[in-house]
Amino acid sequence: MENLICLNQIEIDTFLPEGRLDKAKALLGESRMVDSTAITSDEEWHCILAECNPEILIAGWKTPALPEDYHQVVPRLKYICYLPGSIRKLVPRSAIEKGLIVTSWGSSISRTVSECALLLTLCCMRRVRYWTEEMHFNGGWKTPQTETQSLFERRVGLHGLGLISQKLVDLLKPFTSKISAYSPSVPDSVYADLGVSRSESLEDLFGNNDVIIELAALTPKTTGMVTEELLKLIPQGGAFVNVGRGAVVDEEVLAQLASERPDLQLGLDVYGEEPLPQDSPFRGLDNVMLLPHLGGPTIDRRRDAGDHGIENIRRYLAKEDLIDPYDVGMYDRTS
Amino acid sequence: MENLICLNQIEIDTFLPEGRLDKAKALLGESRMVDSTAITSDEEWHCILAECNPEILIAGWKTPALPEDYHQVVPRLKYICYLPGSIRKLVPRSAIEKGLIVTSWGSSISRTVSECALLLTLCCMRRVRYWTEEMHFNGGWKTPQTETQSLFERRVGLHGLGLISQKLVDLLKPFTSKISAYSPSVPDSVYADLGVSRSESLEDLFGNNDVIIELAALTPKTTGMVTEELLKLIPQGGAFVNVGRGAVVDEEVLAQLASERPDLQLGLDVYGEEPLPQDSPFRGLDNVMLLPHLGGPTIDRRRDAGDHGIENIRRYLAKEDLIDPYDVGMYDRTS
Repeated sequence: MENLICLNQIEIDTFLPEGRLDKAKALLGESRMVDSTAITSDEEWHCILAECNPEILIAGWKTPALPEDYHQVVPRLKYICYLPGSIRKLVPRSAIEKGLIVTSWGSSISRTVSECALLLTLCCMRRVRYWTEEMHFNGGWKTPQTETQSLFERRVGLHGLGLISQKLVDLLKPFTSKISAYSPSVPDSVYADLGVSRSESLEDLFGNNDVIIELAALTPKTTGMVTEELLKLIPQGGAFVNVGRGAVVDEEVLAQLASERPDLQLGLDVYGEEPLPQDSPFRGLDNVMLLPHLGGPTIDRRRDAGDHGIENIRRYLAKEDLIDPYDVGMYDRTS
Repeated sequence: MENLICLNQIEIDTFLPEGRLDKAKALLGESRMVDSTAITSDEEWHCILAECNPEILIAGWKTPALPEDYHQVVPRLKYICYLPGSIRKLVPRSAIEKGLIVTSWGSSISRTVSECALLLTLCCMRRVRYWTEEMHFNGGWKTPQTETQSLFERRVGLHGLGLISQKLVDLLKPFTSKISAYSPSVPDSVYADLGVSRSESLEDLFGNNDVIIELAALTPKTTGMVTEELLKLIPQGGAFVNVGRGAVVDEEVLAQLASERPDLQLGLDVYGEEPLPQDSPFRGLDNVMLLPHLGGPTIDRRRDAGDHGIENIRRYLAKEDLIDPYDVGMYDRTS
């Protein structure tokens, strides 16, 4: 009986660099390391699980799925510390129901997503999409008619005020104090602490800001919530940035609007369908910045997720409350 | 005898919007407004000057040049409040020698240039140049090999610690505390107040930072100061951003280096020759962000330069010290 670390070399190098692996091992006590990419069959994987019968499993993207009857294969298993984001492929819903403790990178990656939001916002203000094509392929240079905008003193509206938005406020503060958010469930005290105004409706958020940043979580309620009606409220010269989830927005309308309104600048990192289809109407538009869902974490910051995992193992062993352990609701919410 | 405002409509709308023109007029007292673009000859311009014989002239890009013998044409002229940047085309050097007071937008535009520096830095970290082409023209999407970096916790080195660098530090602080600068003439107290470390040499600056931001003023001494030797010190995966002046850098070597080292990311807004020549080797490189000298001010922030000018007029009239009036040294330094 020993704890189990099932990762591949890239995961070890990026999530647990610079002493973090040793730190994790020291916490786990007797433990075994298995290269997840060397496991060739479910039988082999179940064999490893049965042999080790770990109480704690550290897992990564390539760790094979836990069997539905995991409590028969690994009766001692109590806690899976999954270093990346979504546990859906690794852990069956029934395991959460039965009380298996599982954590993922949770909020430790929020700041890199907020960084991506700021990047796309600044790109919109200076029309980086347009200038990249002009400068590289059309021999371009500015003219007296060239439009440029700054983020300084701009009104910025956040749809959603979760952890990513909260980190984003830190990055926006040096540029502007005119930050508002629409998130009815977040209490006034959070707004007050952040120095963010409450927007009373999405109509207010979209109609009365120069930059709107989409960060609402995807739920049945938010799917398609950003409608044509709302998108048409974005003021002349405004920018719309999405680093949350594509399906929150009516993307067909958004693409149509961008093609009709050259004043509008879009910055998109997420899409309803990913990878973004080859024939997506967003591709080619010179007022639309596109990134391939790079929000977070960046490779160099996977170590933040490693630190988060190590802290959770420490807490687990010290019988302290874990940071953001899954419950069934969270399992269902996260895609 | 009346003061003179010689601007065109675009300058009035962008430098002096929202009550600023009235504020300026109120300060000037009896004054005449002339549309600079309606003046068709030097004779007409000299006639206007002689007729008004202003003590104060508010000028813009399209204001015709002051004659060399201006003191004979406009003997009362004491102060030119030039709203944009470089006064070279408007004011002969001899006028500064003779004691004519002239101010320009000075440091009021620094923050927009610092914003452009942050934008280009973030673009380098996420490889926006590459992804813009991939996403828009090659139907691209990320792969498991996709490299992404964050600015969080990165070592940032600033070449120069003038007003733009100082504003930039405010924008960088939420990302990293590892900020250093090379600027031998700036006293320790400025470094201490900003929380910036002093880099003892350019070799140290280029060799020991992940991001190097070029902001040194162009002088005979700094021309070509960033040599092949220095550029080759930039660490693997590093970024080099120039929002200062192109001629500070050996651009031929820089372009060569970028074409040989795909790990290196460049973000350029300024060039030794502007407009950037059609056949510039920078054009087309997929690790080089190019902007057409858009640093600052953006059109929406020209009003900051307007405010700066109005404040200088107020000070002039109140016999207070003006902000950054030209002397001969400054005239010679600014191109």
